[in-house]
Amino acid sequence: MALLLDELRSADGAAEAGAQAWRLAEAMYPLCRSLTGAGVRATLDLIETQGGLPLQRTEVPSGTPVHDWEVPLEWNVRDAWIADAAGRRVVDFRAHNLHLMSYSVPVRRQMTLEELQPHLHSLPDRPDDIPYRTSYYREHWAFCLRHRDRERLGPGPYEVVVDSTLAPGHLTLAEFVVPGQSDDEILVHTHVCHPSLANDNLAGIAVAVELARALGRSRPRHTWRFIFAPGTIGSLTWLALRPQVLPRVRAGLVLGLLGDGAPLQYKRSRRGDTLTDRAAAHVLAGIEGARLLDFEPYGYDERQYGSPGFDLPVGRLTRSVNGGYPEYHCSADDMTLLRPQALAGALQALARLAQVLDGNRRLLNLSPFGEPRLGRRGLYRSTGGHAPGAFEHALLWVLSQSDGAHDLLAIAERARLPFEAIEAAAEALQQAGLLRDLAPDEPAPAFTIPGSQTPKGTPT
Amino acid sequence: MALLLDELRSADGAAEAGAQAWRLAEAMYPLCRSLTGAGVRATLDLIETQGGLPLQRTEVPSGTPVHDWEVPLEWNVRDAWIADAAGRRVVDFRAHNLHLMSYSVPVRRQMTLEELQPHLHSLPDRPDDIPYRTSYYREHWAFCLRHRDRERLGPGPYEVVVDSTLAPGHLTLAEFVVPGQSDDEILVHTHVCHPSLANDNLAGIAVAVELARALGRSRPRHTWRFIFAPGTIGSLTWLALRPQVLPRVRAGLVLGLLGDGAPLQYKRSRRGDTLTDRAAAHVLAGIEGARLLDFEPYGYDERQYGSPGFDLPVGRLTRSVNGGYPEYHCSADDMTLLRPQALAGALQALARLAQVLDGNRRLLNLSPFGEPRLGRRGLYRSTGGHAPGAFEHALLWVLSQSDGAHDLLAIAERARLPFEAIEAAAEALQQAGLLRDLAPDEPAPAFTIPGSQTPKGTPT
Amino acid sequence: MALLLDELRSADGAAEAGAQAWRLAEAMYPLCRSLTGAGVRATLDLIETQGGLPLQRTEVPSGTPVHDWEVPLEWNVRDAWIADAAGRRVVDFRAHNLHLMSYSVPVRRQMTLEELQPHLHSLPDRPDDIPYRTSYYREHWAFCLRHRDRERLGPGPYEVVVDSTLAPGHLTLAEFVVPGQSDDEILVHTHVCHPSLANDNLAGIAVAVELARALGRSRPRHTWRFIFAPGTIGSLTWLALRPQVLPRVRAGLVLGLLGDGAPLQYKRSRRGDTLTDRAAAHVLAGIEGARLLDFEPYGYDERQYGSPGFDLPVGRLTRSVNGGYPEYHCSADDMTLLRPQALAGALQALARLAQVLDGNRRLLNLSPFGEPRLGRRGLYRSTGGHAPGAFEHALLWVLSQSDGAHDLLAIAERARLPFEAIEAAAEALQQAGLLRDLAPDEPAPAFTIPGSQTPKGTPT
Repeated sequence: MALLLDELRSADGAAEAGAQAWRLAEAMYPLCRSLTGAGVRATLDLIETQGGLPLQRTEVPSGTPVHDWEVPLEWNVRDAWIADAAGRRVVDFRAHNLHLMSYSVPVRRQMTLEELQPHLHSLPDRPDDIPYRTSYYREHWAFCLRHRDRERLGPGPYEVVVDSTLAPGHLTLAEFVVPGQSDDEILVHTHVCHPSLANDNLAGIAVAVELARALGRSRPRHTWRFIFAPGTIGSLTWLALRPQVLPRVRAGLVLGLLGDGAPLQYKRSRRGDTLTDRAAAHVLAGIEGARLLDFEPYGYDERQYGSPGFDLPVGRLTRSVNGGYPEYHCSADDMTLLRPQALAGALQALARLAQVLDGNRRLLNLSPFGEPRLGRRGLYRSTGGHAPGAFEHALLWVLSQSDGAHDLLAIAERARLPFEAIEAAAEALQQAGLLRDLAPDEPAPAFTIPGSQTPKGTPT
Repeated sequence: MALLLDELRSADGAAEAGAQAWRLAEAMYPLCRSLTGAGVRATLDLIETQGGLPLQRTEVPSGTPVHDWEVPLEWNVRDAWIADAAGRRVVDFRAHNLHLMSYSVPVRRQMTLEELQPHLHSLPDRPDDIPYRTSYYREHWAFCLRHRDRERLGPGPYEVVVDSTLAPGHLTLAEFVVPGQSDDEILVHTHVCHPSLANDNLAGIAVAVELARALGRSRPRHTWRFIFAPGTIGSLTWLALRPQVLPRVRAGLVLGLLGDGAPLQYKRSRRGDTLTDRAAAHVLAGIEGARLLDFEPYGYDERQYGSPGFDLPVGRLTRSVNGGYPEYHCSADDMTLLRPQALAGALQALARLAQVLDGNRRLLNLSPFGEPRLGRRGLYRSTGGHAPGAFEHALLWVLSQSDGAHDLLAIAERARLPFEAIEAAAEALQQAGLLRDLAPDEPAPAFTIPGSQTPKGTPT
Repeated sequence: MALLLDELRSADGAAEAGAQAWRLAEAMYPLCRSLTGAGVRATLDLIETQGGLPLQRTEVPSGTPVHDWEVPLEWNVRDAWIADAAGRRVVDFRAHNLHLMSYSVPVRRQMTLEELQPHLHSLPDRPDDIPYRTSYYREHWAFCLRHRDRERLGPGPYEVVVDSTLAPGHLTLAEFVVPGQSDDEILVHTHVCHPSLANDNLAGIAVAVELARALGRSRPRHTWRFIFAPGTIGSLTWLALRPQVLPRVRAGLVLGLLGDGAPLQYKRSRRGDTLTDRAAAHVLAGIEGARLLDFEPYGYDERQYGSPGFDLPVGRLTRSVNGGYPEYHCSADDMTLLRPQALAGALQALARLAQVLDGNRRLLNLSPFGEPRLGRRGLYRSTGGHAPGAFEHALLWVLSQSDGAHDLLAIAERARLPFEAIEAAAEALQQAGLLRDLAPDEPAPAFTIPGSQTPKGTPT
């Protein structure tokens, strides 16, 4: 059996992919991303050019209704600063794009420090870091700065300039689809709206790109769809844009925050027992320190996929969680936080997870009355008297449980064997004609004991 | 949101109610209660006069069939004693009403100690206490006395007098009903048949009276019905008397033994997962030392409510359990055992429990496709980038889970938030038009993804 | 209530039966059993003569198809040896029947040691023991010998003789049926194909014989069927032979390996929650050191009963498990390993297990509205005020739970009382007319609260 992403399963292959992901993140880091605008488009360009992943982009006009929301105006920034009387920029968007609150409306004004204070954000607890703030849905402007710098500001007056535009335009999202043998889909989503923040979420973007490229070279059973979109409004827009895809979604993952030193953490989908949840539990059980988290309705875009009207089987894979590391949402979340080997480890886990999500299925035992004779089919040792080996165990488990009520993952869990071993046994049995695939919604036929075949025994 | 019994939730309010309950118990203590008779009626009188609770009484004639039973003859006692040759009363009903076995038939006889012995009950292990004994269903008479006194009895002869009547009459039970917005009912039952025993069950009666009076001043969603009746035959009679109420019972509590120093103990209803059980688990989880007990078919009147033909969602709240404290069913269970602060603590817990039982309901998210925009409805902070607060968490949880499959209590449990926080969030969302109530038996409509609303995105 | 196998429940009775089982095993030990042939028939003869158990035998011709298999050729051995140049037998079937691999085809040849080596099996780790090997389904021959002896063999040449026949004949299986009040059946299966191996499985055979004989003297509720058959092909043949029995099987046990010093181990049936599984959990909970094992699709004939097409409620009772003791499948598994008290302990446990399997049933409370009056039916003490005793507890539990959804075993588990106590209470209540039996598949009628019987109470 050829495994789907064999290259990413090995330490060497994963290390190479991790290094490549790190370099892509580094290239994307300086861009000023937001919900909309040029920064998002430039990021998608880099994914295509440096990342080697061809994207299908969609531009959705401002004002388009998407369920309870609508696509916002497009925001772009040329420049922004606060300058003192000497014309020296004391806060400068060009130095760090976090200095300007995202979606700040244009302003050009002389102000005293006192007038300016309500428009300043800083972190007294982290005086050397610039906080990340947004005001997407209320027209407003503000600057973010290091608390240490803020305390040094004199009474002014200051020249305050936000040279931005907030105007009808588009929201940009992108997809990469790997067609599978089946139309049923597996989603991978990552948010592309954060400016110069490395772990949140250049890490998620870069890992998704590597995974997508590797899957693009393989022949999966399911159709895999990668979605790159701004947070919240991006997933909402995608959900509104692709209603025909939703009933075919079998599993899905939101990726983010995969580059720091924390162990992997999987957050369950809303239902808590979907294929994605079960597969993640199976794979993470084998990874040192990895943890499973219950669903909760805040976090990243799993909130939208898991809203009650959609209720899709979409979980989330991160290392640290949102709000769960000291550098979260401030300028300390930079490229020094991102470790190539953390990205590599995430890719290795995702390769195993992809195998389970893609390969899991139900099979039907075609010879269910007693064990079939495996020996004469070349699947069992001929000399009896000693214990069967691991492959024989896997064969027996697959035969025992393939009644339509158990998929391969359930069999692997009950047998306490790796999914890959169970899947390999299933393929051997299928080749021997002892199993057939059951379609996802196909009811399992009841086994009827063939009474008419009763042999004529001779009572004595 | 106005809480139902706000006054009882505060330490001060509960303390005042606890003190009042203690004084009512003290007034009821001397009366000789039994299954029937004047003592029960006098107790109900005190509930109305001193307790300030107007009661609806029902007198059911002796001989009335109630399911497998029938209402017994009415028993009343004028006097009873054992006097020695000198005419000195060595056992005297007027000194303590426990001296006479409940339902003792009349007798007037000269007897030696030897003849008298089969008619005497005492407790060798507790020589200073008078035991409590009854013979409701076999015509018999007996005296109960301190073992120390029994040992001092000479050979006699004695004059033995039970000046009682056991004759056709009535069984008396009383109800207090607080009409709610809905006809669905919540029951509170307590037994009123025990003579001078303080914790069992003047404590339960007095707490029920305080709770009932407080509820009477409020506007509950459900109709609350308080039942004061003798043990076993009283609940059986009520069950036979009110068949039309039974299908509308949503929850219920038997109250008893709430005045001693033991922590609160809730005994589950027969099914073990009813609303009452879930609410009690939620509330008691926050009370130091409180415990949950499994249902068992002995104890107080929860036995009858939980018999298989009725199978009502009625649990039981006590401190000590029946048989579970040294003073149980003997004269040591007197007013010194009853602590005002224990009664107050029970009332505080019951106020929270009443809030959950009364307020729990299912709501339906009317904007289930993605999160609705809370900001524009004034329910969410406008500046993004930092973590949401507790109220916002509660809003998101209620929206996420209001699909008809989860009631507010289930949401509170999953969110690990107090019921009151979830209910407040639900009311805010309902006022914003984002939720509507689901009737108790209303099936939740399936959410249909609106494919026709697909926005026109422009692929590029 | 008369218990089914009272004689086997006492220590003395079990010890006597254990000693008898040991003597039967000793008599069967020398015989050369295999899948088919004279050894199996001689074993069945001993069960009838020495064991005192009349059997119903069935001879099934070679070639008969049984599901995916067919009945093999019959194998018989007259003699087999390896002799050195001096004519001295260096390996001799007559010395120990394990020396010849089971189902070895005839051979008569001069061979060097080098030519012979591929036909020799020994255990380097256990140099003093002869291994047990079979080649049922590939035509082959081999000798098994002590590794110490193998190392002493010179270069040869050797005369190698297997004087066996492998020819059309029959597979022999035997049944013993105890008719019950009901046609529903409980199966007990044990394999009879192993040659001179004591624990595997003369222990299982001998215990089954004792249990069967004791049951034959009793009047069980269910029909009990004991099956003595060769491993795998024997159970497959029986399953093909008796399709009409299969839908009536309510429970079943495979017995084996019951004679060594290990504690009892019960392996669950495939479904894991069948009556057999629940009964074994109940009984083994009271036996020091006893363990429950999950189902897995290898082991003994429970594999076939539990194959997905049959999925019968058949578990397995052993002490050591297959492969789980050092003497397993080699000549060290001899009569010195078999302890009479181990066989006795197994019989004692089986007597309790049989009581549960046979006696478990659902009953319907005919007086479900409140507790019925037990006192007037002589089932309850007349003087109230103190705690009920164990029998009264059992009565109340049975009444509380006899709604059709709980069988006696479920009631015993919930009440934390022994099954026998619950069954005795049920019989007392049934005699009092308070319960009736529910047939296995009879739906429980819903209890309808009799509203028309409402007594006329007088509101005052």
